[in-house]
Amino acid sequence: MAVYTEVGDAELEAFLSEYDIGEPVAFKGIAEGVENSNYLLTTTHGQYIVTLYEKRVDPSDLPFFLGLMDHLAARGINCPRPIHGRDGTALRTLAGKPAAITSFLHGMWPRRIGVNHCGPVGEALARLHLAGRDFALKRPNALSVTGWRTLFDASRTNADEVSRGLTHELETELAFLEAEWPRDLPEGVIHADLFNDNVFFLHDRLSGLIDFYFACNDALAYDVAICLNAWCFEPDRSFNATKARALLLAYEKVRPLEAAERRALPLLARGAALRFLLTRLYDWIHTPANALVKRKDPLEYLAYLRFHRTASSLADYGL
Amino acid sequence: MAVYTEVGDAELEAFLSEYDIGEPVAFKGIAEGVENSNYLLTTTHGQYIVTLYEKRVDPSDLPFFLGLMDHLAARGINCPRPIHGRDGTALRTLAGKPAAITSFLHGMWPRRIGVNHCGPVGEALARLHLAGRDFALKRPNALSVTGWRTLFDASRTNADEVSRGLTHELETELAFLEAEWPRDLPEGVIHADLFNDNVFFLHDRLSGLIDFYFACNDALAYDVAICLNAWCFEPDRSFNATKARALLLAYEKVRPLEAAERRALPLLARGAALRFLLTRLYDWIHTPANALVKRKDPLEYLAYLRFHRTASSLADYGL
Repeated sequence: MAVYTEVGDAELEAFLSEYDIGEPVAFKGIAEGVENSNYLLTTTHGQYIVTLYEKRVDPSDLPFFLGLMDHLAARGINCPRPIHGRDGTALRTLAGKPAAITSFLHGMWPRRIGVNHCGPVGEALARLHLAGRDFALKRPNALSVTGWRTLFDASRTNADEVSRGLTHELETELAFLEAEWPRDLPEGVIHADLFNDNVFFLHDRLSGLIDFYFACNDALAYDVAICLNAWCFEPDRSFNATKARALLLAYEKVRPLEAAERRALPLLARGAALRFLLTRLYDWIHTPANALVKRKDPLEYLAYLRFHRTASSLADYGL
Repeated sequence: MAVYTEVGDAELEAFLSEYDIGEPVAFKGIAEGVENSNYLLTTTHGQYIVTLYEKRVDPSDLPFFLGLMDHLAARGINCPRPIHGRDGTALRTLAGKPAAITSFLHGMWPRRIGVNHCGPVGEALARLHLAGRDFALKRPNALSVTGWRTLFDASRTNADEVSRGLTHELETELAFLEAEWPRDLPEGVIHADLFNDNVFFLHDRLSGLIDFYFACNDALAYDVAICLNAWCFEPDRSFNATKARALLLAYEKVRPLEAAERRALPLLARGAALRFLLTRLYDWIHTPANALVKRKDPLEYLAYLRFHRTASSLADYGL
């Protein structure tokens, strides 16, 4: 639930005057996304999204994010396309915040994930990985294995209050992953946050991918591992191998995994589970229970992590 | 900031199948309004608002609210028009809540109120009052003078913590208004909440009125008094008589105030200030400081109330 920054009438008018997208007829804050303020702008030309980048986004990363969306859209990926002003610029300032206008994607994110969603997600992820191969800018993944210990240290003294024994379990897991993390897998641009609220469907077909504000350079198979966590567990936290099989088969139709990637997948899935567990744990401990942003239960990911620990090969993921 | 109820994919599909408004292509929660959950629905036919009525709205009032919007829209008032399903019904259930679809109004509410807004607001309010004259349903105003003591009693023991001396000042004011409140003014349907976020403008012209969920039967001049509070004070809490003059002159061009209404206006304005002071005070005391809904400062209305207490005639309101 977002919209942190109110936009004044005169500010909006001055901002829009830089673009050739018609006259504004409506401007409404959207109650989705937790990182930025998003507005749905309707003009005489159509619908757009206006995003104001809030403090969790580093302004120096914005050329990477906006450039990536331009790059991917030009290669046929259905993602928000930054709208460039008359001066050619996509990034400017609104209400004192860095801000951009992007195209409006049709579709709705699935509230309940079905097997039918997982194939299209796997396929779209692989297409994204191929389309990103020749993107010139780089952005390291701050939330990969090298960043996890800092995150853990910020929560470790309170972790046992969330769940008894959690500190020890995370410490052991982290040490294992730091030692075993694969370094030689094919890398490229990854989405890094392809959860169900970032994937739109229309009439049972995937219609678009949104929210590229965690995108970075990392092992492509790690992005697959994130999707296994995001799409293949049931509300009761059990793993659904049918969903995973659909996701992986569809991915491999577009971009077959290399042998090293296949071998690494259970480990990468453990890492992905730990990454979301650690950020959720951090937010859980450092966000007041009744704050504006709804906290997500970190223990969900502890269950996922324990499943991946029992997996030894792709056979455990339905292949 | 709203959206309290999540709507599932299958629920939405079943709900929309009752209407002839095309196929859905987008459905996004809107971060405006604090009483209900609002979604912006885009279909192949156009844009609509889907409202889920949350617990602050009494379901038995919904036929009044929706019927009133139908009635006003048919008489040329630019307000959300309830969309009726194939069965003729505008009110049904979505995600376990009473819900309705209304038309989407173009325009943006003014973040900064100028004198140029106040004339159009006065004119629109008068047109609303005339258009509502022959509306058949009735709804008493639960937030008029007879309801204020209950509200006050729920906050009185904590009022002095908000501002020293507040309990005594409110007690005195309430006793005075209860004794002096006029009973014989022309009555009709009033909007009762025509604040700037409920009035849309497009190219400096008023393009629509929204949020009829406080509408009720009461003295028409009381609605004018609410608007004097809502539109004619500056951010420093000083009264702007130029704004009030613009609002009142434009109102009177459409519906001249009767002599009794003109005499009563300073008193009605005191009452309106007290009404918003009391509901804000209640929310201030009973809502945690960091809750999902942002609290509004009740003392703003104490300043307004004190101004109205110094006024003796319409001359003090710029006429």
